[in-house]
Amino acid sequence: MPLTAAVAGASGYAGGEVIRLLCSHPQISPVTVTAHSQVGQRLGSVQPHLRQVAEAELVETTAENLAGHDLVFLALPHGKSGELSDRLAQLSPETVVIDCGADHRLHHRDDWDAFYGGEYHPAWTYGVPELPVAGGKQRAALQQTKRIAAPGCNASTVALSLAPGIQAGLIDPSDLVSVLAVGPSGAGRALKPNLLAAEILGSASPYAVGGVHRHIPEIKQALRETLPADRQPEIQLCFTPVLVPMARGILATSTARVQPGVGEAELRAAWEAAYSDEEFVQVLPAGQHPATAATVGANTLLMSLTFDPASHRLVVVAALDNLVKGTAGAAIQSANLALGLPENSGLTMNGVAP
Amino acid sequence: MPLTAAVAGASGYAGGEVIRLLCSHPQISPVTVTAHSQVGQRLGSVQPHLRQVAEAELVETTAENLAGHDLVFLALPHGKSGELSDRLAQLSPETVVIDCGADHRLHHRDDWDAFYGGEYHPAWTYGVPELPVAGGKQRAALQQTKRIAAPGCNASTVALSLAPGIQAGLIDPSDLVSVLAVGPSGAGRALKPNLLAAEILGSASPYAVGGVHRHIPEIKQALRETLPADRQPEIQLCFTPVLVPMARGILATSTARVQPGVGEAELRAAWEAAYSDEEFVQVLPAGQHPATAATVGANTLLMSLTFDPASHRLVVVAALDNLVKGTAGAAIQSANLALGLPENSGLTMNGVAP
Amino acid sequence: MPLTAAVAGASGYAGGEVIRLLCSHPQISPVTVTAHSQVGQRLGSVQPHLRQVAEAELVETTAENLAGHDLVFLALPHGKSGELSDRLAQLSPETVVIDCGADHRLHHRDDWDAFYGGEYHPAWTYGVPELPVAGGKQRAALQQTKRIAAPGCNASTVALSLAPGIQAGLIDPSDLVSVLAVGPSGAGRALKPNLLAAEILGSASPYAVGGVHRHIPEIKQALRETLPADRQPEIQLCFTPVLVPMARGILATSTARVQPGVGEAELRAAWEAAYSDEEFVQVLPAGQHPATAATVGANTLLMSLTFDPASHRLVVVAALDNLVKGTAGAAIQSANLALGLPENSGLTMNGVAP
Amino acid sequence: MPLTAAVAGASGYAGGEVIRLLCSHPQISPVTVTAHSQVGQRLGSVQPHLRQVAEAELVETTAENLAGHDLVFLALPHGKSGELSDRLAQLSPETVVIDCGADHRLHHRDDWDAFYGGEYHPAWTYGVPELPVAGGKQRAALQQTKRIAAPGCNASTVALSLAPGIQAGLIDPSDLVSVLAVGPSGAGRALKPNLLAAEILGSASPYAVGGVHRHIPEIKQALRETLPADRQPEIQLCFTPVLVPMARGILATSTARVQPGVGEAELRAAWEAAYSDEEFVQVLPAGQHPATAATVGANTLLMSLTFDPASHRLVVVAALDNLVKGTAGAAIQSANLALGLPENSGLTMNGVAP
Repeated sequence: MPLTAAVAGASGYAGGEVIRLLCSHPQISPVTVTAHSQVGQRLGSVQPHLRQVAEAELVETTAENLAGHDLVFLALPHGKSGELSDRLAQLSPETVVIDCGADHRLHHRDDWDAFYGGEYHPAWTYGVPELPVAGGKQRAALQQTKRIAAPGCNASTVALSLAPGIQAGLIDPSDLVSVLAVGPSGAGRALKPNLLAAEILGSASPYAVGGVHRHIPEIKQALRETLPADRQPEIQLCFTPVLVPMARGILATSTARVQPGVGEAELRAAWEAAYSDEEFVQVLPAGQHPATAATVGANTLLMSLTFDPASHRLVVVAALDNLVKGTAGAAIQSANLALGLPENSGLTMNGVAP
Repeated sequence: MPLTAAVAGASGYAGGEVIRLLCSHPQISPVTVTAHSQVGQRLGSVQPHLRQVAEAELVETTAENLAGHDLVFLALPHGKSGELSDRLAQLSPETVVIDCGADHRLHHRDDWDAFYGGEYHPAWTYGVPELPVAGGKQRAALQQTKRIAAPGCNASTVALSLAPGIQAGLIDPSDLVSVLAVGPSGAGRALKPNLLAAEILGSASPYAVGGVHRHIPEIKQALRETLPADRQPEIQLCFTPVLVPMARGILATSTARVQPGVGEAELRAAWEAAYSDEEFVQVLPAGQHPATAATVGANTLLMSLTFDPASHRLVVVAALDNLVKGTAGAAIQSANLALGLPENSGLTMNGVAP
Repeated sequence: MPLTAAVAGASGYAGGEVIRLLCSHPQISPVTVTAHSQVGQRLGSVQPHLRQVAEAELVETTAENLAGHDLVFLALPHGKSGELSDRLAQLSPETVVIDCGADHRLHHRDDWDAFYGGEYHPAWTYGVPELPVAGGKQRAALQQTKRIAAPGCNASTVALSLAPGIQAGLIDPSDLVSVLAVGPSGAGRALKPNLLAAEILGSASPYAVGGVHRHIPEIKQALRETLPADRQPEIQLCFTPVLVPMARGILATSTARVQPGVGEAELRAAWEAAYSDEEFVQVLPAGQHPATAATVGANTLLMSLTFDPASHRLVVVAALDNLVKGTAGAAIQSANLALGLPENSGLTMNGVAP
Repeated sequence: MPLTAAVAGASGYAGGEVIRLLCSHPQISPVTVTAHSQVGQRLGSVQPHLRQVAEAELVETTAENLAGHDLVFLALPHGKSGELSDRLAQLSPETVVIDCGADHRLHHRDDWDAFYGGEYHPAWTYGVPELPVAGGKQRAALQQTKRIAAPGCNASTVALSLAPGIQAGLIDPSDLVSVLAVGPSGAGRALKPNLLAAEILGSASPYAVGGVHRHIPEIKQALRETLPADRQPEIQLCFTPVLVPMARGILATSTARVQPGVGEAELRAAWEAAYSDEEFVQVLPAGQHPATAATVGANTLLMSLTFDPASHRLVVVAALDNLVKGTAGAAIQSANLALGLPENSGLTMNGVAP
């Protein structure tokens, strides 16, 4: 009998993607779907691509409706999952809870206060299994938790791009630069003028320029924690996201000054050591570069490594689907680990391209 | 042990999509992939989204390389599969062969000569299981064949849109009009100036205007054959495809003059009778209309029916993914039937949206 | 000294386009720009592409602020210009007023009631100079008016496509079918979920299916009025707009059953007779078809004529920029006529492509 | 009587854009258009958006056909204009020649050999009037030349973004990073698989990663030459272009480590000093950021300056239309200077948006 899941925020893009993936999951079934303003509607009218569960009815997002399932996925606006998850923990302590929002990602209250504000909630286990951490991989912690903070999509892309080099001491942590081409689905289904199709079609535009994007502290935390507490470097990261006209996808170009004497072979060896055994994080052969289209619908992050000797910089270009490996896929992959299921259950490596 | 498949034309869009779907198929494995100019390359460098089989090597497209598999999918340019399949039949008579090209679709040599030219090959079983045909559904024929002609993507979209009304005599077969918004992947990976991104981004443009598109005889044949030979109507169809800036997808708006006295309820009943038991062809509730995004990656055709009393016309709007339900998904669904497998093996209903 | 213009609704897409064109107009200057919720802002922060007038300040849309100019362009939501223009006429009777909304387009109150509702206002002179009308062209009326109703963008596209054939009696007015690929800027800057970029990128979807689009009565009126009152045919038009992922542009495929005995040469002659002297409405040579990209930013409508003998139908494909020839360019072209200026002042034939 | 211009390479994107702009130029007329494989065709069938000159016939690109005009614009593939311009100089020494290709941009043969190869031709006057150079602006040199090298589109974007800070000594020249979102029209009308619409729609992908893009020596040269020969710094620039799904446009995010003690006010003052008198290079108010759509069709470069104190980096985001300010507009603006015409003749500040 499959495990049962509830998805809160089922009318949004992240919630919809969790449901889409669960529909193909051999061990987990999405049995309850909750929303706020669209309670009472059939899922088929709100998420018309989810044909397999088109008849499911949206119920109110309450701890009571979420309790009693084996898993709960929270895909709510930032700031909305903290209190709800406290109450859910009381009602349904055995339930594995995965928060796709930011409320349980940051280890330091200062970071929360500076970038989000409102009530701080302690961090849960970070949902990026392949991330190098002090002493191994993040996977180990996920195998022993019932509380998972799915990553920010930009954050995991950049953290996975640079972590091997920070951990191995090959790149200068004080001089990191990331520029990301991102699709508008990452911003959710919000009715904002800058997210209108007429504004985005045929245009590229930056946002959150100059160190103010909320994923910055999450990236810095992940990179610091690749090393033990007594050796954690100060991370300086210049981070600029650019909105481009594609529904899904992140293409992150991250570049770092290489430490003196370090060359391409040594760099490649460090990244290979980190990811060569991974199914969902793949370093492409030299000369190949990723395109976001190759990852659409898949739980795959593709990355290329290139050393630019003239500027003494390493260039890591990484592509993923912000809704899958960036959010819902990471959530399910992490939940699989927490539940002792095969890590890749319900997830695909192959993207839908062209 | 899974059945073995070979895919000819694995470097193209249709061939790539067959492989993508077979990678998730529980009973069939893609074990041989063939190409022409890219022989010797790894699939991962030619189809970078197919991570699961990235190491597979492309071999030459010959009958010898294709022989000996349980299934062979031919995804070759029109005119290239006729002779090859003759030779394959000699070498490997038990193999189920599915032709994704046009070579085995047309029942009349005249149609072939008028719209394609070159050597005519007899038609195989048409690969649209849900299509109403005289006496039932096309599914029955597919359960008893080893030779399948996968449909043209535009053709099956329009044929499925209008067949129930033609079969039931509710719409005028001599006054059909279809206009299709189509993405450029339907034209394949051909290096043509009008398929360059700079030409297509931000633009809509028609092609094959005025009754010259090659899918027209296929549509007319399918609509005629909804009725027994002695009652087949003459079909008159004005068909115009319009290229629009989306990689995948067909949105076909088909409209027909309704026979005197026929109303919306009777129309809806005929379509419901044809498709209410179908998993992959779905008529949406009144007032809902399909978007192509809802079908991306899925084997689903979504359609809406609307009666316009002022013009006495029925408007059927149908959306599908040209590479899945329009080509590779239809091929696999048909092969499943021919092999006695569950019809939906390896196929999904849920689209990848947004 | 240039003529002075005020633009009401300067924060929207249509108003912005009027201003953009006026900035290059040799005889008219945009001196006042009005808005509603964004009063007090600089135009540069609301319409960042209008660099030439970036410092202009938005003032409240009132009759008082609009009065006293040589021209006033009203680019307001439907239903908002009727009352305002009454009051403006009292304050500033000599001002030439061009309404880009629908309030003054329809000659029959019944049409208004059926498709819009709310208070009916009498029709003004219709702003499509090239339109064949009984006894000549619409241009003549525009040369003698001070009140202009700029056309609906879809309406003028279809009316210009079919008018020559209706007027000449070559096509059947009771069996017209139009399907339009349209970009989302035609819907204005409205915060609606279906206009979000993530919904529209990579997708095509219909709206207002089945005879309910508000431009239908406007098209039928224009086609009827190509003939004298005593010979006006009943028009039956099946009209379906399809939203596609391009910021601007309409590609209208209009098809009509050709009257018995009429052939391609006769059809082409009628359209040539109507448009061969026109600068902004051009019939392409046989075999060439229009793309919307070729008209971006230009006041040009390009159309192709193709006769499909198998279906006895003429196919007219027409492309224009919905914000220019569809709205703001038509408004300025009409105003030029009303003011006795060169008809093409401030307008370009060349599109911005690719 | 207007000056006469010939445009070589009139069938390509850059050549087409030169013609489009000249059609609105009050003092220059495009009277001869040349091409290679499309000789004999009408311009209207090759560049269907250029309605004003649709009847012009393409003649062969030879020095003889180009000679005798007041101006010649060369819009040819790299390596093709060197020899042709030598011969043209003999036949027609008084003609002002503007090369839109790379053949006359680089001051050092070593750079040419390393990034292009083939025969080296001496550099002409660089066509970026607003560029800060030692002792003033590049404008002065353009006022006294008959040979102009129009810039590379990516090169001028990045050079203009960073030049004020290099010249003023406020940013570290050895630690520059630029990542550009670029549309495919910048690659020309070349039939390459990676430029097919199906590949680019819905996808972002990098190219020329790791210091190999041909515009890099051009940028470094421009930045060095902001200072006198004896004080020119070594420039280190990590440059990565990313192809995104928009026909036109470059959005360049350039970031540089700020020299110790330098703050936002000082930075802004330097950029304002460089550009506050410029019509076509504009620094946006703090908090506003550019979108490429705002510059489409215009000769405007918009840029924002943001200081990120946490990473000690300045972020300059610059947007322009690669075919206008990036190529054809820069060519015409420079030609205006060389001919003593108003610098902005034939050019617009307002973009075509949305």
